[in-house]
Amino acid sequence: MKNTFIKYKKGVKLKSPILIVGLPGIGAVGKLVATQMIKEFKGKRIATLYSSHLPPRVIMLKNGKVRLVSNRFYLLKTKTKNDIVILTGEDQAVTPEGQYTVNNEIVRFFKSELKGKEIITVGGYNISGNYTDSPRVLGNASSDKVIKEFKKAGVVFGESRGTIFGAAGLIVAFSKMQKLDSICIMGESSLIDMDPNAAKAVLKVLSKKFSLNIDMKKIDSMIEATAKMIKELESQMSSNAALPPESKENSSYIR
Amino acid sequence: MKNTFIKYKKGVKLKSPILIVGLPGIGAVGKLVATQMIKEFKGKRIATLYSSHLPPRVIMLKNGKVRLVSNRFYLLKTKTKNDIVILTGEDQAVTPEGQYTVNNEIVRFFKSELKGKEIITVGGYNISGNYTDSPRVLGNASSDKVIKEFKKAGVVFGESRGTIFGAAGLIVAFSKMQKLDSICIMGESSLIDMDPNAAKAVLKVLSKKFSLNIDMKKIDSMIEATAKMIKELESQMSSNAALPPESKENSSYIR
Amino acid sequence: MKNTFIKYKKGVKLKSPILIVGLPGIGAVGKLVATQMIKEFKGKRIATLYSSHLPPRVIMLKNGKVRLVSNRFYLLKTKTKNDIVILTGEDQAVTPEGQYTVNNEIVRFFKSELKGKEIITVGGYNISGNYTDSPRVLGNASSDKVIKEFKKAGVVFGESRGTIFGAAGLIVAFSKMQKLDSICIMGESSLIDMDPNAAKAVLKVLSKKFSLNIDMKKIDSMIEATAKMIKELESQMSSNAALPPESKENSSYIR
Amino acid sequence: MKNTFIKYKKGVKLKSPILIVGLPGIGAVGKLVATQMIKEFKGKRIATLYSSHLPPRVIMLKNGKVRLVSNRFYLLKTKTKNDIVILTGEDQAVTPEGQYTVNNEIVRFFKSELKGKEIITVGGYNISGNYTDSPRVLGNASSDKVIKEFKKAGVVFGESRGTIFGAAGLIVAFSKMQKLDSICIMGESSLIDMDPNAAKAVLKVLSKKFSLNIDMKKIDSMIEATAKMIKELESQMSSNAALPPESKENSSYIR
Repeated sequence: MKNTFIKYKKGVKLKSPILIVGLPGIGAVGKLVATQMIKEFKGKRIATLYSSHLPPRVIMLKNGKVRLVSNRFYLLKTKTKNDIVILTGEDQAVTPEGQYTVNNEIVRFFKSELKGKEIITVGGYNISGNYTDSPRVLGNASSDKVIKEFKKAGVVFGESRGTIFGAAGLIVAFSKMQKLDSICIMGESSLIDMDPNAAKAVLKVLSKKFSLNIDMKKIDSMIEATAKMIKELESQMSSNAALPPESKENSSYIR
Repeated sequence: MKNTFIKYKKGVKLKSPILIVGLPGIGAVGKLVATQMIKEFKGKRIATLYSSHLPPRVIMLKNGKVRLVSNRFYLLKTKTKNDIVILTGEDQAVTPEGQYTVNNEIVRFFKSELKGKEIITVGGYNISGNYTDSPRVLGNASSDKVIKEFKKAGVVFGESRGTIFGAAGLIVAFSKMQKLDSICIMGESSLIDMDPNAAKAVLKVLSKKFSLNIDMKKIDSMIEATAKMIKELESQMSSNAALPPESKENSSYIR
Repeated sequence: MKNTFIKYKKGVKLKSPILIVGLPGIGAVGKLVATQMIKEFKGKRIATLYSSHLPPRVIMLKNGKVRLVSNRFYLLKTKTKNDIVILTGEDQAVTPEGQYTVNNEIVRFFKSELKGKEIITVGGYNISGNYTDSPRVLGNASSDKVIKEFKKAGVVFGESRGTIFGAAGLIVAFSKMQKLDSICIMGESSLIDMDPNAAKAVLKVLSKKFSLNIDMKKIDSMIEATAKMIKELESQMSSNAALPPESKENSSYIR
Repeated sequence: MKNTFIKYKKGVKLKSPILIVGLPGIGAVGKLVATQMIKEFKGKRIATLYSSHLPPRVIMLKNGKVRLVSNRFYLLKTKTKNDIVILTGEDQAVTPEGQYTVNNEIVRFFKSELKGKEIITVGGYNISGNYTDSPRVLGNASSDKVIKEFKKAGVVFGESRGTIFGAAGLIVAFSKMQKLDSICIMGESSLIDMDPNAAKAVLKVLSKKFSLNIDMKKIDSMIEATAKMIKELESQMSSNAALPPESKENSSYIR
């Protein structure tokens, strides 16, 4: 078995496709966006990436079967000028070498086999402090042309600092090397595990950019649930703050 | 030295063999089942897998010699229609790449060299909460045909969630890719280290499936010993519960 | 993509260049020295090393674009007999194999492609105890000839003990193997994160060795800021020392 | 650069050499034995193993130069029938793959290039409980012939349990595969860092086996120093034992 390869149903014809990459990461923003769009626009799987650089595990399916951990390409049913393809999966490559190999293969495959035009990676941008319900979407792109295009859709440039780890960053760098337009858009997030608010901000940008009509009901109910959970945590913490020191200490056993 | 290879005594002829894989993992269920069956049915070693992906260590033998850590194939003396071969060993591969390489080689070897018909991997399925003395056996298989067959032997499908890590899962996925029937059966276990009860549940399934008469005396005495140990731990914990908070805290130093 | 390669603008002609390597490490001494010299002598990038052994991440740039983590060669504008080239970057290779590969490639490239004459690696030398404002510069070199030369510039030999980890050490060893003069010079440092004092001591050695006139204003203001910060920390600690034991214990919760 | 290779001065002629391997490990027993024998019998370096599987670091030498971390072969000046060669070094390979590669190369080189007859690896055998001043030497060998030979020299067989990690074990297993006599001898040790007593027990075995006259003065003074240090620690601990519980708790801050 080759260490990284993509199984591809060769019959599929695509109209100058755009790839949107949503893999696990900060606030699960990429994964939430990808999942939401696949459901909304009845995504159909057209290709699967397998790699020995992914964690060595299988998913137990409800039908009693198994599926190897993978990254999967879904073609959306939209009426956009360019076809939209979503890439998502359970995991990213584990090692530096794996990250380089897998993400290079994603860019190569999308450009050479699918004749792709542009790649948008989606991630979360860590902001410290309190949970915000009006996160911005920050961007870093491969060229001024791409920056100009996404500014119109509400993305903020030049305010992100530091580094982007893994697929969301490497795919933009490798696209640039292979002369493919590319951008990473990141919803501001103060929640490590799952931030539906940041995901909604990104979905708004994508719907504006591609004139899509994305139903926000599901993501809104996730936002409500999250907000409620946070309120409860905060009220617990402030009631603890009112307790004498000893009790506060005990509360740490709960975690 | 090639990084992964199987030494194989070529003279051995097998009748459409079934492979049962029991390697270290949750509750040591796979390892317990494999060891028990090898003893019960006088397993004879027919092949040995060596790999630089296994931990770099040797076993000190009672006869004063050493043996490289390995995975070993044993042919059982049973009167079943299909020969039964057990695969067991001290360790699994360490890295993702190692897991992919070693488990692919196991499937390839069993299908191509031993002309194998089916692979059953055995594992433990983590359930939280108290130790159960009536664990179920959950399954995830490569095809509906296999699911149907193992339902008859008492395996429960569609109730396992999450992922299977390592050989127990990858071997089923790789078998499916190489068009070989395969299944992972998992005894429910709340004990991380060693759960003979879960192992017994799996042994019952296997004895029913292959009309084997497995002597449960040894495993039953292990179950008794485990149950006794757990009772003692519980009585210790509940007597601690009766102590004032300060004493409970001290008890944690014992661990 | 090859796992490690250097992109090189082939037109550039160099006069028997000297390479000064300043990568992240103890006290950030190497990085501080490299950055300061590039600014001071208007360094111009002439080559870039990419490697799948570096951490898989990209830098977010102020102009809204991205840059792959890399190691970069800058040619300084100096009037020295030998051209001076600085090598710096955000990261070093992660694994042992990566360290061997990347650092071998740096030495090979500098000797074969740039016709380099000597390599100086810069690092920090860990000394325990209090922050010193008069750190020495210790050295370890490839030959007695190099030792003699750098003694004149104030480097102390034979007083460093233990090992040098990563690029600062391997590059000297690999240079020796490839018969290239080489030395590692280390500013004594008791600060793990960033030690501008140690960096200044190294800058003095380099300015003496190459008759450079390095403006120390920037590094001096960093030294002042660091000294102020340390004083504040010390006064905090000594005021804690005056507190009864119980209070001291509590203060540890703050960290 | 090849990832693992041995630089070898080809002129050297050896009389059916025996290799004694003493690398870092439990109680530093191997390293202590190797160092002692090299000093005692004026060992002269005849070969050096370099590998990108060793930790990526260099040693700072007293003469102001550097040396790459390596494993080195020393020929002893003894009047034994077989020449005795010692292999020692600062480190072992880091990864499983590295351990397999480096230790295979050691066996191959010794058998094929040096026409070696037997390999003895030296290690420590962990025993729990108090420091013993009369440790036994346990052995695990490649064949009954070797076991018989070393029993005469006082080595105990069949009482060691568990696994031998790294070079001390793998080299015996690989020797067996390449049909070379081999044994691992281990001094019992309850000290993780450095156990000169265990080293002395091994030195006695080696001096008996090869009719060597090893001066034990140096190792005896190390044993005395260790015994003194342990007594002091024990008296500290027993005086703590006399304190009320609260004070004992505090004493843990000292560590």
